[in-house]
Amino acid sequence: MQNQTLTELRRLEKQLYAYGYAQALMSCDEATAAPPCSEAGRAEAAEVLSRAAFDLLVNDDTAALLRRAAAEAGDDARMAAEARELQRRYDEIARIPAEEYAAFTRLVQQAVPAWGRAKRGGGFAGFAPCLEQIVAARRRQAACFAPDRDPYEVLLDRYERGLTIADCDAFFDRLRQTILPLLEEIRRRGKPVRTDFLDQDWPLDAQRRLARAVMEIWGLDPDHCVLAESEHPFTEGLWRGDVRITTHYMPRDMVSSLYSVAHEGGHALYELNVDPACDYTVLAGGATMALHESQSRLFENLVGRSRAFLRHLWPVLTDLFPAQLAGVSQEEFYRAVNRAEAGLIRTDADELTYSLHIMVRYELEKELIRGSLAVADLPAAWNAKYKEYLGLDVPDDARGVLQDIHWACGDLGYFPSYALGSAYAAQAWDDLDRQFGPGVLDGQLAAGNLAPLKAALRDRLWQYGAAREPAELVRSLCGGSFDPAHYTDYLRRKYTDLYEL
Amino acid sequence: MQNQTLTELRRLEKQLYAYGYAQALMSCDEATAAPPCSEAGRAEAAEVLSRAAFDLLVNDDTAALLRRAAAEAGDDARMAAEARELQRRYDEIARIPAEEYAAFTRLVQQAVPAWGRAKRGGGFAGFAPCLEQIVAARRRQAACFAPDRDPYEVLLDRYERGLTIADCDAFFDRLRQTILPLLEEIRRRGKPVRTDFLDQDWPLDAQRRLARAVMEIWGLDPDHCVLAESEHPFTEGLWRGDVRITTHYMPRDMVSSLYSVAHEGGHALYELNVDPACDYTVLAGGATMALHESQSRLFENLVGRSRAFLRHLWPVLTDLFPAQLAGVSQEEFYRAVNRAEAGLIRTDADELTYSLHIMVRYELEKELIRGSLAVADLPAAWNAKYKEYLGLDVPDDARGVLQDIHWACGDLGYFPSYALGSAYAAQAWDDLDRQFGPGVLDGQLAAGNLAPLKAALRDRLWQYGAAREPAELVRSLCGGSFDPAHYTDYLRRKYTDLYEL
Repeated sequence: MQNQTLTELRRLEKQLYAYGYAQALMSCDEATAAPPCSEAGRAEAAEVLSRAAFDLLVNDDTAALLRRAAAEAGDDARMAAEARELQRRYDEIARIPAEEYAAFTRLVQQAVPAWGRAKRGGGFAGFAPCLEQIVAARRRQAACFAPDRDPYEVLLDRYERGLTIADCDAFFDRLRQTILPLLEEIRRRGKPVRTDFLDQDWPLDAQRRLARAVMEIWGLDPDHCVLAESEHPFTEGLWRGDVRITTHYMPRDMVSSLYSVAHEGGHALYELNVDPACDYTVLAGGATMALHESQSRLFENLVGRSRAFLRHLWPVLTDLFPAQLAGVSQEEFYRAVNRAEAGLIRTDADELTYSLHIMVRYELEKELIRGSLAVADLPAAWNAKYKEYLGLDVPDDARGVLQDIHWACGDLGYFPSYALGSAYAAQAWDDLDRQFGPGVLDGQLAAGNLAPLKAALRDRLWQYGAAREPAELVRSLCGGSFDPAHYTDYLRRKYTDLYEL
Repeated sequence: MQNQTLTELRRLEKQLYAYGYAQALMSCDEATAAPPCSEAGRAEAAEVLSRAAFDLLVNDDTAALLRRAAAEAGDDARMAAEARELQRRYDEIARIPAEEYAAFTRLVQQAVPAWGRAKRGGGFAGFAPCLEQIVAARRRQAACFAPDRDPYEVLLDRYERGLTIADCDAFFDRLRQTILPLLEEIRRRGKPVRTDFLDQDWPLDAQRRLARAVMEIWGLDPDHCVLAESEHPFTEGLWRGDVRITTHYMPRDMVSSLYSVAHEGGHALYELNVDPACDYTVLAGGATMALHESQSRLFENLVGRSRAFLRHLWPVLTDLFPAQLAGVSQEEFYRAVNRAEAGLIRTDADELTYSLHIMVRYELEKELIRGSLAVADLPAAWNAKYKEYLGLDVPDDARGVLQDIHWACGDLGYFPSYALGSAYAAQAWDDLDRQFGPGVLDGQLAAGNLAPLKAALRDRLWQYGAAREPAELVRSLCGGSFDPAHYTDYLRRKYTDLYEL
């Protein structure tokens, strides 16, 4: 007979799963299928359901159940992990006074549309009061949670368990020291990359077929994973057996959708391959955002943008786009999709400059939370950093400090995960390459055979879901302690070769 | 200040709305967007949410609240209606012993897949035990609800408040007396209708544009109503500002999707035009299934299949399908989409024979519930009635007694609504025609101007949602007491003319 506490725990987890499922489906539907003016009724429903989920989690019975579960878990590592994960979620809410929590929810609900209006032309001043309140609230919340720690580190830890400011600083320092000189060198003496053919008409029907081809090569089971279209690509795992990915087709840019599908496909593979024993528990799905991003980046960049894989994809591409790719060589295509170019918009950034965008946000949000930067001074600080790191003048806040929704949602401390994910991916790749032996992985990619790579990633990471601590999973994925040198070496190697430096 | 009881009532209604929204979205998503093997996780989530909605409704606090609300409503007709509607929902569940209710839910969950297997080739015998239990359970439930009434009438009343067996018998008698001789006459001496051009390639893209054209003529606001594709067409109103309709495009049949969109568009107009004061209450959406069907049938048949409207649509049709309709006259098209032909499948039936399919089901389910027909004898009884009414031999149960899912879902007493809806529509049409004056309505249809018709239907029916009793709404819609003669006269007139009898 199953332990009574475990039965109760699983019952709570399944209930939380159901509310999470409904909320995820609502947001997925909103982005892919809902009529444009359907917001009001969705918001009413979402408020009721999120309140019900809150009430399920935060109450004395749950608190007592979690204490019992932690005490009784003993050798049952999975049960211990479930109790720990639930306790984290409980603490994240319950340690904040209920009034404060409710006020914060309302604040974010106002901040998102305020941010939207500001971005659409209203200007930063219309969003600044909301952001000031969000920063202050997050600082207070961090103090409730861990009064003795740097409040920004408490926030980092919310998204990436165990991540410290010292880690982050060291990581970004190293990136800065690698990327900035590399970019400068490319500007000074890089061999020009041909990009003229990128901007032309790419028939949408052929783009759709390309997306399906990539999903097939990734081995995404169409019985459990479907592709839809949305303004911004995303992955939503409703449960292990139902993962939705989206892309956005652009008539004059096929690279965008190609690599969106490759990226979201990486997220989906992770979600689809968690041990079924985690179904309907808090251990289902990926462990942290950086680990998730490591998989999407790995499939987007280390696989999808590699010469080896593009050798496999080339016949597919030239078959789907015979006119568009006439007179373009495989090597030219490889260089074009990998070109490094400083730009204003994070989501359009290439592999090399992407981390600079993250670094700007990391440095600014750290200062905001610590109080050394006032919200009113944020746009100027933003623009200065874009000048310093990317050499660009920011023409307006819509293409500057207002471009991302994250801060309006209250997500401060979230951005570093994006860059960490890329670094985990590069290190994992080095270790896999070593494990497979010289040239083996490349040979598999060139043959379109991703099965051995996927099996290795399943072994190292996917299967565990959130059943192990993130730090342990990072070690398991990377084959050792995290070392950003793998990532910076990879970038240096790749771009030195590509630009013939 | 708002009455405290009303505040509590509305709070409960909004909660029930939220759970209903989530469940409706899940079923809509399943039919339109979800991957094929995503069922298990959806079922787990649905079970939790439906249990939570059940617990919200069925408890002593709600019982007391409903008593208070009924007592305090006074002159507030809307509050009284809300209390009444909630009380109906409460009674429907609470009068049945909890054990029985739970067992029935489980039974239906097993019956639906059993029915699917039987239909796919397993044969009726595999489904019969489930159906026997369903019939017995529905009989017991009817007895819990109203021990003194005919159990089948209790079930009829569940779907169509106030509908009696006497009403139904008289209604179907009249249909039988009209339709059977008419069909016989068509067979004997009807002028043949040309249908050769229906079965050809109808490009899907043009079919999609036709669907959009119909939605535009119906005046379905694209901000609040979108069209998707699903195996079986349906309408799902998530709330007044978000109504989804679907269709199914067939490469060699354009009539099917054209009239699916016309039909579902009628349902959608009803849902979209309920008074916003009913939002998030139990009064939102259509009042009964027959009233809903009256609107879909009205737009599908009385508008969509009329000569007047087809005069308006003809240029659109010939523009979209120039090759397919070359050599076809407008009158030939009109006759082809209105041809009467006995067939085996209800959902494929034309306007004239449709009610015969319903009549078969009505007569059989009445006998099943009363106990005068054993489940084991059902297939033979079914086949005999198809021979008698439609003159057809049923080749197998998949195209016979197993064709519909309704009984497997426990829906006995539901079918008559389909036929009643058509009859309400015909009567309403006669009254509107009289009100508008001779030829006016036809002139508007021929001009593609549906605004006056829609305004009248909004006045008579749509705006009320479920805020008035169904019987009152039927009178309001029809401009008087229900009289099926309008429907039978309409059928006789239309088919005498069409087949030049």
